[in-house]
Amino acid sequence: MVFNLNDDGERAGGNNATTAETSSNRVVISGMSALMPGRNDLEEFNKKLYNKENFVVNQEPLWHSNHPEVTPYRGKIADLDRFDAQFFMVHYRLAQSSDSTSRKVLEQTYQAIIDAGVCPSELSSKRIGVFFGNGFDESFKLLYSFHGKGYSTLLGSSKTMIANRISYWLNLRGPSHTVEASCCSSLVVLQLGRDAIARGYCDAAIIGGSRIMLQPQHYINYNRMVPISFDGKTKCYDVDADGHILAEAITVLFLQKYEDAKRIYAEIYHMKSNFSYDNFGKYRDPAKWSKHLEKFYEEAGVSPSSVEYVEGCGAADPEADRAELQALEVVLCKDRKKPLLVGSVTSNIGSTGETSGLCGLIKVSKYVLIVSFFNLLKDVTRSQSQIPLMVLASGRQESGVQKILDHIKSKELDPEEIALHHGVYKTKILNHMARGFGIYETVNNKTVTRSEKKRYYDSAARPLWFVYSGMGSQWAGMGEQLMRIPIFAAAIERCDRVLKPKGLDIVDIISNPDKSMFDNILNSFVGIAAIQIGLTDVLRAVGLVPDNVIGHSVGELGCAYADDCLTDEEMISLSYSRGIVSTTMEFVRGSMAAVGIGFKQMSKICPPDIDVACHNGPGSCTISGPEEIVCKFVNELTGQGIFAKELQCSNIAYHSRYVAKAG
Amino acid sequence: MVFNLNDDGERAGGNNATTAETSSNRVVISGMSALMPGRNDLEEFNKKLYNKENFVVNQEPLWHSNHPEVTPYRGKIADLDRFDAQFFMVHYRLAQSSDSTSRKVLEQTYQAIIDAGVCPSELSSKRIGVFFGNGFDESFKLLYSFHGKGYSTLLGSSKTMIANRISYWLNLRGPSHTVEASCCSSLVVLQLGRDAIARGYCDAAIIGGSRIMLQPQHYINYNRMVPISFDGKTKCYDVDADGHILAEAITVLFLQKYEDAKRIYAEIYHMKSNFSYDNFGKYRDPAKWSKHLEKFYEEAGVSPSSVEYVEGCGAADPEADRAELQALEVVLCKDRKKPLLVGSVTSNIGSTGETSGLCGLIKVSKYVLIVSFFNLLKDVTRSQSQIPLMVLASGRQESGVQKILDHIKSKELDPEEIALHHGVYKTKILNHMARGFGIYETVNNKTVTRSEKKRYYDSAARPLWFVYSGMGSQWAGMGEQLMRIPIFAAAIERCDRVLKPKGLDIVDIISNPDKSMFDNILNSFVGIAAIQIGLTDVLRAVGLVPDNVIGHSVGELGCAYADDCLTDEEMISLSYSRGIVSTTMEFVRGSMAAVGIGFKQMSKICPPDIDVACHNGPGSCTISGPEEIVCKFVNELTGQGIFAKELQCSNIAYHSRYVAKAG
Repeated sequence: MVFNLNDDGERAGGNNATTAETSSNRVVISGMSALMPGRNDLEEFNKKLYNKENFVVNQEPLWHSNHPEVTPYRGKIADLDRFDAQFFMVHYRLAQSSDSTSRKVLEQTYQAIIDAGVCPSELSSKRIGVFFGNGFDESFKLLYSFHGKGYSTLLGSSKTMIANRISYWLNLRGPSHTVEASCCSSLVVLQLGRDAIARGYCDAAIIGGSRIMLQPQHYINYNRMVPISFDGKTKCYDVDADGHILAEAITVLFLQKYEDAKRIYAEIYHMKSNFSYDNFGKYRDPAKWSKHLEKFYEEAGVSPSSVEYVEGCGAADPEADRAELQALEVVLCKDRKKPLLVGSVTSNIGSTGETSGLCGLIKVSKYVLIVSFFNLLKDVTRSQSQIPLMVLASGRQESGVQKILDHIKSKELDPEEIALHHGVYKTKILNHMARGFGIYETVNNKTVTRSEKKRYYDSAARPLWFVYSGMGSQWAGMGEQLMRIPIFAAAIERCDRVLKPKGLDIVDIISNPDKSMFDNILNSFVGIAAIQIGLTDVLRAVGLVPDNVIGHSVGELGCAYADDCLTDEEMISLSYSRGIVSTTMEFVRGSMAAVGIGFKQMSKICPPDIDVACHNGPGSCTISGPEEIVCKFVNELTGQGIFAKELQCSNIAYHSRYVAKAG
Repeated sequence: MVFNLNDDGERAGGNNATTAETSSNRVVISGMSALMPGRNDLEEFNKKLYNKENFVVNQEPLWHSNHPEVTPYRGKIADLDRFDAQFFMVHYRLAQSSDSTSRKVLEQTYQAIIDAGVCPSELSSKRIGVFFGNGFDESFKLLYSFHGKGYSTLLGSSKTMIANRISYWLNLRGPSHTVEASCCSSLVVLQLGRDAIARGYCDAAIIGGSRIMLQPQHYINYNRMVPISFDGKTKCYDVDADGHILAEAITVLFLQKYEDAKRIYAEIYHMKSNFSYDNFGKYRDPAKWSKHLEKFYEEAGVSPSSVEYVEGCGAADPEADRAELQALEVVLCKDRKKPLLVGSVTSNIGSTGETSGLCGLIKVSKYVLIVSFFNLLKDVTRSQSQIPLMVLASGRQESGVQKILDHIKSKELDPEEIALHHGVYKTKILNHMARGFGIYETVNNKTVTRSEKKRYYDSAARPLWFVYSGMGSQWAGMGEQLMRIPIFAAAIERCDRVLKPKGLDIVDIISNPDKSMFDNILNSFVGIAAIQIGLTDVLRAVGLVPDNVIGHSVGELGCAYADDCLTDEEMISLSYSRGIVSTTMEFVRGSMAAVGIGFKQMSKICPPDIDVACHNGPGSCTISGPEEIVCKFVNELTGQGIFAKELQCSNIAYHSRYVAKAG
């Protein structure tokens, strides 16, 4: 497996590959997940990888064998007995009698899709292939002797179902099968997945590999064929190499077309698999190996000398390692300027057999590249958001939602990562019972939580109302922070084009903290209207479509804008006209007040010079009239213990007989 | 699975398939083999198929289970315990602990390659892929608990090795892996093999499928999931359908590029596999099925109404059968003129699960097509040979060679079939210990044996001599039958061009049975020379290159032609000149005789007027001299009990002092 890490992301040597696809057939790896030894936590895994730590453990096995040929060291993956059958839509009885791979692979599939910034539920009915590489299935032995009820043992131990169950769970359309090609299995399915997309059999593919070893016999038989290390160390490419550790792993990749991918780990330029074990030749002949590599680079149109790093096999068998390095030397070290770097994940986690190819690929693409390569290039501050970021999350339980939010806020906010999160969680994920969100902001290079909410979510749709307020809801500088939202700023810019010729500076009106929007009635009208236009645009942009709109006074214009009866230009022009009328006409100096009495009762007690302007509800109305009379009446009501409060209305007795001439 | 049997072999509706390959990527099925229930003998299988016989047996199983859910009827394949480990280069211990599929698939692979007219040993080092579809491996359970020595149980039960062992045995280069896709497995590998060739991953492919069921649990578990018939009959598409029989089978196809194939059963135009089991839908939804079929025909560029026959699934599950037929009706019966024929091999042999697709394909392509379709078109007499045909054969033992020869001569000679045979057997097949040939001719519509030979063959090369005789070996009409060989006739034609201007009719000279080549000396010379030229050409054409050539008299000219010292024109001209000299010059009336006495002794007793013309060997010489003296000396020698016989030499005392003036 060879990775070309040129800085510009281009292959050196041009592309004259005979099997090259047209640009629309470019296939990329957009999501990854792996369950490897020691990899319960990603950060911990990275740290260990960089400290060259060994993930192999001398762990109490599932079985107790004192057979001298059973190695005490193994690369084991955790929690094989845990499985959320309900979430993955597997019947309880089937889950009980399923082989471990087919259970755990569902979890990794979920994670790989999430990793690609895709919501698993969105894949339903899509043309997506599933190809899975697998080897020995040791559950089968136990399952077959299980005389239970029903047919679950047959379905549970069918290897076809490793792939088919993924297709079933996600309701996919497309080819779906399992492959056995021993240690090549996981790379063979990578090729199958890539080819299936390139040939148009499907538009995306889920591919993966697994090896789980439950029986001591496996270790005994394997050790008789290929040397196993008994000191727990896999000394790849080392003169003291004395065999590798056997390890378990489950890996899954999500493959997409270049143009569909939200995240790109790597593009699959070319692959080539070959059976080359000559029946008269020797084990791993360097000459054959070189020939295969040479042909590979020729077909791929890549100059071997431009390759910077090779993730090799590294079986820690001296003869095989030597043959591998000899072949690399012959093909890749010709005309080389910089030294060729060679590594093998086998030295960290042991040999994972059927899925070893993908373990190496994931190590290089996800951990090494992301950590040491992409992260060096990536400047999070460069793309740092100027506004707080909302992070959506869902999970089986509220605690799962919290875990995701905790992870996000535990580090610098990465808008790209959050965009991927948004892609995953913006719609409901089937069988996720809890949803939540957090609003975070970077302040002095620290992540600050502005808001966080989570709760069990019943999927019941509730009506969405947009409420447009009238006069009295404004404050000085109320638009200042909103101007950081580009969509809002764009709306204000459009309003400015209408108002500037009329001599008004709308940006200053809404965002100057020293300038009250109450300074004059015209500013109030256009300020409120502009902000309503901007907010409506922002809400629309995040996909919120109101079931109903309601508004009062100037807010009625907002309603008209929300349901497309008015354009933004018309709305801002109307609000300007209304402001001009209010400021240029001479009215009696009026006042308005909100009162905690219903419309009916108020009609009875209201002084004759005052009008009931608004019917707010059964126990609330707004009155309007000459300033002195209103003020006196408010004091009377307050004296009687009735709620009454004068409103800021720029001394205009709106909705009363005193402004009738404005009509 | 749908087959289009248009008489002209062309697809109706043209080809606008989006995935169509360029003409050089056309992939065909060139060889087939199957081990199916009841198919120990091909002819018997055909007969049974046409009598609509059921191949399912109520046979003593390997195990004794009185479990009421174990069906008494099974489609079993024979001789699972027999295997020629040495031939297939499998170690004895590995053969003992290998699963049955990986053993028996080697046999079927051999047969499929032979069937394509290809010698298996020729495939060595070629770019040939191997893709094998498999399901449950029930040997694994037994093997895994086997605590033997060595690692053979792991290798023997690895499913990867089903494919890899074929690659290893034939020493192939190319992708090699095993696939599990349940009942789709064998068609999935057909698609993989076709795509691998079309994409240039390999130049040919061996693909196949298998299902073997050894454990009673399989029947129990399966029956709980899908109905199994308990009366031994699989009533496909029948109102009384009550489930299918479970059956075993192993199938193998050899796929080649169109231009490489010597035999073509079918071309693979288009394939499409799809996972379509909706997780909220019902079992086999006719609507989804129709959609898939419609898309398939659209992609393939074939008009559904032009399809004549469909080999269907026919699970004999009333609901599934109905859904299948409904889908066929919707898609294939629109605008149909002739009724659509639908069948399923499941009714004959039961459901063979992982390899059911290929069983159907082989039934249609090999048995139905060959027997009822191709044979109707094929007129063996049309291509009947005018000369006897040599049939080559090899085998593990002489009896195997005889079996092949017996099969050939048991029926009308088919030159096309014999050409395929020749392709297979012309070079040595590795580990075949016996070789042989038969020469057969069709006389009065019967196959007559002209010669047959077989023996153990030690592979040691022996020197090949071409011996060119001198005068005295000719007879009247000796060239008549040889003229039936086109290469021979062509050589005579070339001689004719030289001789016709000189007034000689060489065809008449060598083939007229009433015209002795001894009529005159000129005829003898040119006749022998022309025949030597013709025979040399024939021997060369079949690839025989002599290690040595030897000749006497006119035969020395033959030697010169054989080693390219003379052209045919030069040789025939020289023999003509020699004849002219002999006929136009006046010599003493001479005679020659062969005598059973060595040269040395003869020199002592020979009369002075006689010369010793030839030194034939330690106890044989030829004498030459005047007719009367030679005649007298022969009588004397005969009287003494010494072998002496006058030779026909047209009364010319060749190689004696009496013809010295011709020099």
